Amino acid sequence: MAKEIERKFLVRQEIWQPQDEGTEIAQGYLAATKERVVRVRLAAGRGWLTVKGPTQGIERLECEYEVPVEDARAMLALCERPLIEKRRYRERHGEHTWEIDCFTGENEGLVVAEVELSRADEAFVRPLWLGAEVSADSRYQNASLIRLPFSRWKEER
Amino acid sequence: MAKEIERKFLVRQEIWQPQDEGTEIAQGYLAATKERVVRVRLAAGRGWLTVKGPTQGIERLECEYEVPVEDARAMLALCERPLIEKRRYRERHGEHTWEIDCFTGENEGLVVAEVELSRADEAFVRPLWLGAEVSADSRYQNASLIRLPFSRWKEER
Repeated sequence: MAKEIERKFLVRQEIWQPQDEGTEIAQGYLAATKERVVRVRLAAGRGWLTVKGPTQGIERLECEYEVPVEDARAMLALCERPLIEKRRYRERHGEHTWEIDCFTGENEGLVVAEVELSRADEAFVRPLWLGAEVSADSRYQNASLIRLPFSRWKEER
Repeated sequence: MAKEIERKFLVRQEIWQPQDEGTEIAQGYLAATKERVVRVRLAAGRGWLTVKGPTQGIERLECEYEVPVEDARAMLALCERPLIEKRRYRERHGEHTWEIDCFTGENEGLVVAEVELSRADEAFVRPLWLGAEVSADSRYQNASLIRLPFSRWKEER
């Protein structure tokens, strides 16, 4: 059980360049409401089951368990459609590791960066490619992107 | 990951008597739809997180993981209300162990017995107290009992 404190930003795609091959991630949701999220993830040949509580500011309760890959596959098949597909890159800047997610599939074109902090007001080095902060914009939550994928944002405006 | 094959019956409460103290169980649901169930359970000082697929006849996919008790408590707090509270008794009859669940809280008065089989058509000894089979009646599923507890069945008829 952990308290997750994350800040999320857009990535200036004209500046950012991948530094390595990254990791392919497929994830789906067994539950995705404001009150509770249950996520199944397959990444780099490992499976994970994660339960998250409601977002309170930029904090949220998170319980994460590694599960057998065959379980993760079977549970992904139970998830709401579409699944979230993305390639994740990691970059170290100052004291923090950033995760840059390049979405594919129905969220193609969306690139966001997240940094995990130990305190809500913790300072961090801002990478050059850092764009606008979207921590408080629930549309960018992966659990929201299964309901309204990025590819459909324009038509909904 | 396992295929769960269970048959569920009412218990003739005028005949059945507990043989021991049983185990207190508190469980809740992070998801409870026809397509997927995510259950959190606290029982005998241990915590469990269980994912179940849709019921297909009397079979259903089940992935179960033991989790730290403090995680189970935190996740129970995220679950839909009411929680399911019951005392579970185990009895051996012939080759099978029966689980007899005596519900309390909002499902007080409901007593059901379940037997897990290795094949859908597997034979089993019928205990004297065995009542009508309710395997196919979704109202008796624990995930349904949070939406329509037994105490409210009469008024809904």
